[in-house]
Amino acid sequence: MSAPAPVPGCDDDRLARVALSYLTEPGNVRVNALAAEIGSVTLLEHLEEKLGPDSLDTRSRQGALRPERALAAAAKLGLRFVVPGDDEWPPALDDLARADHLHERGGVPLGLWVRGPARLDDLCSGPSVSVVGSRSATTYGTDQAAGLAHGAAAAGCAVVSGAAFGIDQAAHRGALSARGRTVAVLACGADRVYPQAHADLIGHLAAEHAVVSESPPGFSPTRIRFLSRNRLIAGLTRGTVVVEAAYRSGALNTANWAGRLGRPLMAVPGPVTSSLSAGAHELVRTGQAVLVTRPEHVLEVIGAAGEHLVEEPRDPDRPRDLLTPRQRQVLDAVPVVRAAAADSIARTAGIRITDVRGALDRLETAGLVERCGSAWRLAARSAQQEVLSS
Amino acid sequence: MSAPAPVPGCDDDRLARVALSYLTEPGNVRVNALAAEIGSVTLLEHLEEKLGPDSLDTRSRQGALRPERALAAAAKLGLRFVVPGDDEWPPALDDLARADHLHERGGVPLGLWVRGPARLDDLCSGPSVSVVGSRSATTYGTDQAAGLAHGAAAAGCAVVSGAAFGIDQAAHRGALSARGRTVAVLACGADRVYPQAHADLIGHLAAEHAVVSESPPGFSPTRIRFLSRNRLIAGLTRGTVVVEAAYRSGALNTANWAGRLGRPLMAVPGPVTSSLSAGAHELVRTGQAVLVTRPEHVLEVIGAAGEHLVEEPRDPDRPRDLLTPRQRQVLDAVPVVRAAAADSIARTAGIRITDVRGALDRLETAGLVERCGSAWRLAARSAQQEVLSS
Repeated sequence: MSAPAPVPGCDDDRLARVALSYLTEPGNVRVNALAAEIGSVTLLEHLEEKLGPDSLDTRSRQGALRPERALAAAAKLGLRFVVPGDDEWPPALDDLARADHLHERGGVPLGLWVRGPARLDDLCSGPSVSVVGSRSATTYGTDQAAGLAHGAAAAGCAVVSGAAFGIDQAAHRGALSARGRTVAVLACGADRVYPQAHADLIGHLAAEHAVVSESPPGFSPTRIRFLSRNRLIAGLTRGTVVVEAAYRSGALNTANWAGRLGRPLMAVPGPVTSSLSAGAHELVRTGQAVLVTRPEHVLEVIGAAGEHLVEEPRDPDRPRDLLTPRQRQVLDAVPVVRAAAADSIARTAGIRITDVRGALDRLETAGLVERCGSAWRLAARSAQQEVLSS
Repeated sequence: MSAPAPVPGCDDDRLARVALSYLTEPGNVRVNALAAEIGSVTLLEHLEEKLGPDSLDTRSRQGALRPERALAAAAKLGLRFVVPGDDEWPPALDDLARADHLHERGGVPLGLWVRGPARLDDLCSGPSVSVVGSRSATTYGTDQAAGLAHGAAAAGCAVVSGAAFGIDQAAHRGALSARGRTVAVLACGADRVYPQAHADLIGHLAAEHAVVSESPPGFSPTRIRFLSRNRLIAGLTRGTVVVEAAYRSGALNTANWAGRLGRPLMAVPGPVTSSLSAGAHELVRTGQAVLVTRPEHVLEVIGAAGEHLVEEPRDPDRPRDLLTPRQRQVLDAVPVVRAAAADSIARTAGIRITDVRGALDRLETAGLVERCGSAWRLAARSAQQEVLSS
């Protein structure tokens, strides 16, 4: 018979979860489900029996057998371990318990290793968005990612992404340029830097914001850990934006998680000729993602109802907008090429000839029509363009 | 009391409709409704009383008073007048009777002046699509329009557009390059050429395909006639594709008609940075249009159910696709940066060490992992890219 499950967040539970995070891979569906079902302490006892100390490498054995020490060592590196029940625990992640798993990964993480001053619960209390996309993004893509992240962050929205080249990096850059909040979720230990080229970025995020990982300090990135990480990026935020993604980009794995979590998915269009936009276009075409082109669109999707309503876009007023209805009626009846007499225009427009004459004079002054002898036609091509567009 | 409405398509009706098309502007909602309600002959009598011969210019008076002559003169120009009830009448246009009017234009046309060998009823018996967009299109836009029209026409789909610069011209060019069927609907008389620069194109369409107008021969293009014309472009086809359109492009007027007619609307995405794609993006974002990037997408939307199903797009196989599930499991547990010993990889993957050794050798041969002394890690960045993408 198993011991009663301890209260989540209490010391026994936290230490057991530390040990489990050393013993098991992140996103292990069965482990995560059992931790909630039978409690972390009981689960740890079962696992230790099954494994036996010799089946572990040194680091994992140390972490599993001496979780207090592991926590202390992590603290020296500036890392804390946030578990369900803690004030800082982001409730948004609990939705992972109900989401179908993907590539055998899933479930609520045992805990999150966090480096940085930002509190995860604050992060999730307000609007938040993850911005993901290709590592090998184009300048167009990174400009779009940075622009959306900047606009969202400037409006008080927290940004979440990975720390990879391309879209991830641009998303953080955009949020930082707006002095906004931004968080990186890593596939390696939160004390580590991958890729090396982003040491400064990751260091800055750890100093000013937050760097998060499901894997213990020192752990290396593996594909398993990237796939598990993606569910946290989607799970931590109210919505996910895919900026540039080829048909098989890892970003589509994050997008898939947003769908499983019932969180809105957005995609930024690009040239049809760019294979890097093909994945984003497919998400929109198949109705999985909403098309977004401006930060306002993102805020409207993730914001509370009516919180951010996008204004009907429109071009600046044109001369036509400044006409009276009567003048427009006359203008609409003026021929484009061959000039027509005022009385013929009057018939076409169905307006009395006297009114038409007055209107034509004003339209001439506005540069919209021109006189050819006693007849009239539309003026310069520029004016025609406008008259012919509705 | 009014005379009994004559059978549509009979001589009295045809001649009355000829006269009415000289007396009234195309897309006149009231006239079009009355022609169906009380019959064209009765409607003509009423109008003639109301107008009186002096209220007309010479050409209109001639056409109205001598419709037989007008038909004969039109025939000399190679034009025929197709009316409801004729074998050639495209039934698709009858939906206009039920569509709300727009900018005071609407209704089933009194008849269509047609120049060219193509029969309008054939045109509408199979799949058909209208391709519309900006006059001042970019090369990107015209390439997309020509490509979609080519692919659709090559699959036996008839293409319909205007005759303007930019997208219209590219749509015809694309259809012609596939030796497909394509039709131009004009805002001026079908005997006339607007814009002049497209004299060759319009001449070729008139010789090999069809040029259509609601206005009688010789009539000039006006805004009223462009707006009325747009409803025919949408009405003649099973669906409409908007390729490049600014927020206030006339193409959006045609798109609006497709919506009123309950015909599917499609839009081609482009760079967010191009104001010419803003209208198309807005149609998709607001759910009015489906995003399309390839002819197959268009054919799927307008084709009969299941007639054209788009295959799940996918990139060519990658080395990873050629691995056994076991080999993949091992690969997914190999660290990206710091090499790990085989037994540590075995633990991460949860596979027996003996199996892991065999798998690692094969992965090394495949160039996916590399040996560092007795330890292993992922190989070249190219391989990592692929392993890290899902």
